[in-house]
Amino acid sequence: MRSRRKVDVPALVEQARAGSPRALGRLLTLVENGDPALREAMAALAPHASGARTIGLTGSPGVGKSTSTGMLVRALRDRDLRVAVLAVDPSSPFSGGALLGDRIRLVDHALDEGVYIRSMASRGHLGGLARATPQALRVLDAAGYDVVLVETVGVGQSEVEVAGLADTTLVLLAPGMGDGVQAAKAGILEIGDVFVVNKADRDGADATVRELRHMISLGDRTEPHLWRPPVVKTVADRGQGVEELMAALDKHWSWLGEHGELERRRRERAAREVEALALARLRERLGDEHGGGILATAVGEVLAGRLDPYAAADTVVEQTLGR
Amino acid sequence: MRSRRKVDVPALVEQARAGSPRALGRLLTLVENGDPALREAMAALAPHASGARTIGLTGSPGVGKSTSTGMLVRALRDRDLRVAVLAVDPSSPFSGGALLGDRIRLVDHALDEGVYIRSMASRGHLGGLARATPQALRVLDAAGYDVVLVETVGVGQSEVEVAGLADTTLVLLAPGMGDGVQAAKAGILEIGDVFVVNKADRDGADATVRELRHMISLGDRTEPHLWRPPVVKTVADRGQGVEELMAALDKHWSWLGEHGELERRRRERAAREVEALALARLRERLGDEHGGGILATAVGEVLAGRLDPYAAADTVVEQTLGR
Repeated sequence: MRSRRKVDVPALVEQARAGSPRALGRLLTLVENGDPALREAMAALAPHASGARTIGLTGSPGVGKSTSTGMLVRALRDRDLRVAVLAVDPSSPFSGGALLGDRIRLVDHALDEGVYIRSMASRGHLGGLARATPQALRVLDAAGYDVVLVETVGVGQSEVEVAGLADTTLVLLAPGMGDGVQAAKAGILEIGDVFVVNKADRDGADATVRELRHMISLGDRTEPHLWRPPVVKTVADRGQGVEELMAALDKHWSWLGEHGELERRRRERAAREVEALALARLRERLGDEHGGGILATAVGEVLAGRLDPYAAADTVVEQTLGR
Repeated sequence: MRSRRKVDVPALVEQARAGSPRALGRLLTLVENGDPALREAMAALAPHASGARTIGLTGSPGVGKSTSTGMLVRALRDRDLRVAVLAVDPSSPFSGGALLGDRIRLVDHALDEGVYIRSMASRGHLGGLARATPQALRVLDAAGYDVVLVETVGVGQSEVEVAGLADTTLVLLAPGMGDGVQAAKAGILEIGDVFVVNKADRDGADATVRELRHMISLGDRTEPHLWRPPVVKTVADRGQGVEELMAALDKHWSWLGEHGELERRRRERAAREVEALALARLRERLGDEHGGGILATAVGEVLAGRLDPYAAADTVVEQTLGR
């Protein structure tokens, strides 16, 4: 049962910004639940936006995402940066548990105040994570974290969408699991800024690296000032390759800044977020079939063969804008 | 290169309805390409809507979807029904070829005028199939097919969405490939009206059937007049189990009619279709970031920390409705 106590949003925001993990956790729960207090929270957080560096980390189950996240957290902490980890599972409400299990591997940071770790599952809300993830990033950013690592498990579209929320997207593969063709099919070649072949002490690592580089060389990226994604080898559970990985991430970060890409990506991200909220508002106005209204009437005409769907949509738009 | 010749829509519609597969194919190409002539085509088709029975068929690669489709086509042809097959691949533009390859197994119907087969791939348009598939169904329905089989390959969300377009959704599994837990994870328990364990001559078929039945019994369906999805065993490449499968499909068809479910599902489907078109129109009005406009201005305020995303969305909605 959710608490019915009124949420004291200004106090929560203040405490979260002062470093209370408990207050931060409650804000993120508001986000996860789509709580009515969210609006007030977002308004209170907006002036504190600090532009945290966001790194997305994605890959199939078993490639070593959590170990790699752990490795990156250590490297970033060595630079005295405050780090938040947001683990997002868009695939299914069922697998929330498994992901929380993975989190346990990160316990060596449990007592470090400069590290905050949080899992978010979809809780069965279709499209819920598409709304919640950018809002969670806003919360962590305003709470003063310098870097937010967004780790996603999942397949296909959701993975691509969540990856689009990061300044830099890191795609993890392991030898024999994701060869070049698989990568192409999964659409990850398009989303990766940096590729990591983890478990590089296993057979076939060099072949996977070669094939990936080949596939990348075939891709025709259309951005200005072409960025060709590097491929780095790591053995995350032994910390091997962390310097090379950090160097690749830093190089991409510099590239983003030098070519106006950071500004462009963030603007696009904010535009999608605002647009989605605006469309949700407009959709409410259309009314749904059960609530009667403009849409239901137009749909009736379509079912009767008197209107085609385009003409029905026109009617709906005109009447929505008109009232 | 696409032809720049003006499309004679009324002629195409007339020819398609008179049984020309070539005219039908051209209409479906308009749909696939999102051609400007689509609007006119939809308007011309609307009065000819005949309410074809739509059966969705989905399952992982390798479970025998094409063979099962072929088996169903034969059984429906034995009843003298005209059958159209729409094979949709939402997973990736890359796999269009593979799917077309699968189609070849259906060649034994190639000379049968009562059967029409067509593949549709996503052609890289995100969300393109969500628009195109219902429109393709409208075309096939107006062309006078009694039954449309929609076969989908794909994972996760897209599969679920396309399945939502059918009156009856048939989910295929094979022994050892999709056990109950896998099915639950993939979300297919929620979408299946009839489950088929194909390749039932293989080891483990009975175990898969038992586990599926168990998982189904755990699900709490909320529809009125509860439909409990049956599980049927088939060996599609030998035509085994086709009578049981047809009986299960017919039983579901009767159930849909008796309980007002058919009307409800079709109304909901049309509502989603009209709503999506209406929202697309509204989105055009918001303007995008490159084109300047209302959205770009509001996004600038968000990036500057002067507005939170909700307040920005409100501004966008008010100004869109106001102009």
